[in-house]
Amino acid sequence: MFIHNPICKLFNIQYPIIQAGMVWCSGWKLAHAVSDAGGLGIIGAGSMYPDVLETHILKYKNATDKPFAVNLPLLYPDIDKHIAIILKHKVPIVFTSAGNPNTWTKTLKDNGIVVVHVVSNVKFARKAEQAGVDAIVAEGFEAGGHNGREEITTLCLIPQVVRAVSIPVIAAGGIATGSAMFAVMALGASGVQIGTRFAASEESSAHINFKKAIVEAQDDATVLTLKAITPTRIIKNAFYEKIKILETQCATVEQIRDFLGKGRAKKGIFEGDLVEGELEIGQISGLIDAILPAKTIVEQLILEYKQTKQRMSI
Amino acid sequence: MFIHNPICKLFNIQYPIIQAGMVWCSGWKLAHAVSDAGGLGIIGAGSMYPDVLETHILKYKNATDKPFAVNLPLLYPDIDKHIAIILKHKVPIVFTSAGNPNTWTKTLKDNGIVVVHVVSNVKFARKAEQAGVDAIVAEGFEAGGHNGREEITTLCLIPQVVRAVSIPVIAAGGIATGSAMFAVMALGASGVQIGTRFAASEESSAHINFKKAIVEAQDDATVLTLKAITPTRIIKNAFYEKIKILETQCATVEQIRDFLGKGRAKKGIFEGDLVEGELEIGQISGLIDAILPAKTIVEQLILEYKQTKQRMSI
Repeated sequence: MFIHNPICKLFNIQYPIIQAGMVWCSGWKLAHAVSDAGGLGIIGAGSMYPDVLETHILKYKNATDKPFAVNLPLLYPDIDKHIAIILKHKVPIVFTSAGNPNTWTKTLKDNGIVVVHVVSNVKFARKAEQAGVDAIVAEGFEAGGHNGREEITTLCLIPQVVRAVSIPVIAAGGIATGSAMFAVMALGASGVQIGTRFAASEESSAHINFKKAIVEAQDDATVLTLKAITPTRIIKNAFYEKIKILETQCATVEQIRDFLGKGRAKKGIFEGDLVEGELEIGQISGLIDAILPAKTIVEQLILEYKQTKQRMSI
Repeated sequence: MFIHNPICKLFNIQYPIIQAGMVWCSGWKLAHAVSDAGGLGIIGAGSMYPDVLETHILKYKNATDKPFAVNLPLLYPDIDKHIAIILKHKVPIVFTSAGNPNTWTKTLKDNGIVVVHVVSNVKFARKAEQAGVDAIVAEGFEAGGHNGREEITTLCLIPQVVRAVSIPVIAAGGIATGSAMFAVMALGASGVQIGTRFAASEESSAHINFKKAIVEAQDDATVLTLKAITPTRIIKNAFYEKIKILETQCATVEQIRDFLGKGRAKKGIFEGDLVEGELEIGQISGLIDAILPAKTIVEQLILEYKQTKQRMSI
């Protein structure tokens, strides 16, 4: 079905479905399950020390020969060590985010690595293309976790990024079904990056409490908060209510940082503390009803895509 | 092409394209141009005194026999007078927004009027269906002007509202092209309501400065602001920068209201003051490049829809 799809060709995969790199969710197990099902699995390095990343890469490679990627937030303090491990183990594809694509793209490309950069507006998309990346992830306001300052939604962002660059664009933010995959590809995207739905998969390394919170979330469950630091989409839990009070009182950035402390995302996502943890998740969680194997999710996405295509061709 | 479309049947129109009711933009001229082109034109009563509304209805009826609607913000102080004029002149379709659908739906329906209610979340969609409306407009975060508090984007909102109700759903927010129309219909919408693109049409009663501002706007030109009063999406102009300063200083609601004063939207949209006016417009303005006749816009939407359908059926 996707035989001429540029994303499938670029990554050598069957379906243009990319599982997002997500802190505390996307280790080798999830990446393996998604890649084995015909998509592209990503190991999310954002919550991993260099040695942990190395272990995940080795376990992935031991499990399958299928392509995979590592997601690398470029602002990570130990970025050099992460890059060294990526080069050492010949990771075939790297998704970079949260930083300047000029810094590492050439090094990675010179080592034969396919490079994809995540952006949230047209200006950054153009900049990434100029830096020489192979494809772009354009991620909208509805996406979970760290988010752009411009608050451009996926529906508005995709056609504008597609118009601005000539490399393939992968849509992210608000996509959890095959219908949404079909919809964003109608807008010009060549593929999709899906986070929240895979965060709630069986193979996700997130705590079961966190997965259940995704399933129970309604349409209005999340909010983009912490805009004074890094805009982040989370579930509106007790932790968020405290941030809200601080913001209402015009707290300084330092006061908010003090309140946050360290390890809030780990506490919420990995340890399952739904009260005091930072529950980074996308707005589309309201549409997600079950914790399923990643393979089933990929199969459902493709089935729904085909059904939508059939319905829309009449 | 849309012969079995439930929105076309409900309104007795050729294409499921509804021109949004917009303050200071959508008088009888714009509504007439859109309805004559095969869509549904709406006279926006939100910026009209009762006698002005009556004049627009009479001029519309004098120009064409095609169906049209009046958009009625239910919180309008003179709502009784507006309703009386709507009944007197047998307006065939009424779009209600910003208020409780239980208050007026029965009166309108008892008088043979088709009633559509605008919502921004699933709860309000269910409530509108229970109130007996014929269809729902589900409007996302990217829409211009007054907006929901939950900040749910069109991509996330449409499938959840479609799943929650059994009456037809019209998608609004972020739609300016035939590709986007096709995309939201893939998500389950039966039609689209388009604001910004028609605000920049030749027949829009907005000031030429405002129309040019839409054409010049980039992807990141707008912001959802005034959240302490009524969340409103506007262009980030000097007026907005002053609001931002007030908000950063933790100004009270009263202080913000004092700063706003009266007539800011009229000043911006109708009088063309791009510095001190409130420029209510949608995020998709970044994709809009030209001021065109409404008929040309409808024709382009349908052509793009067909092209997208063709491309996505391969």
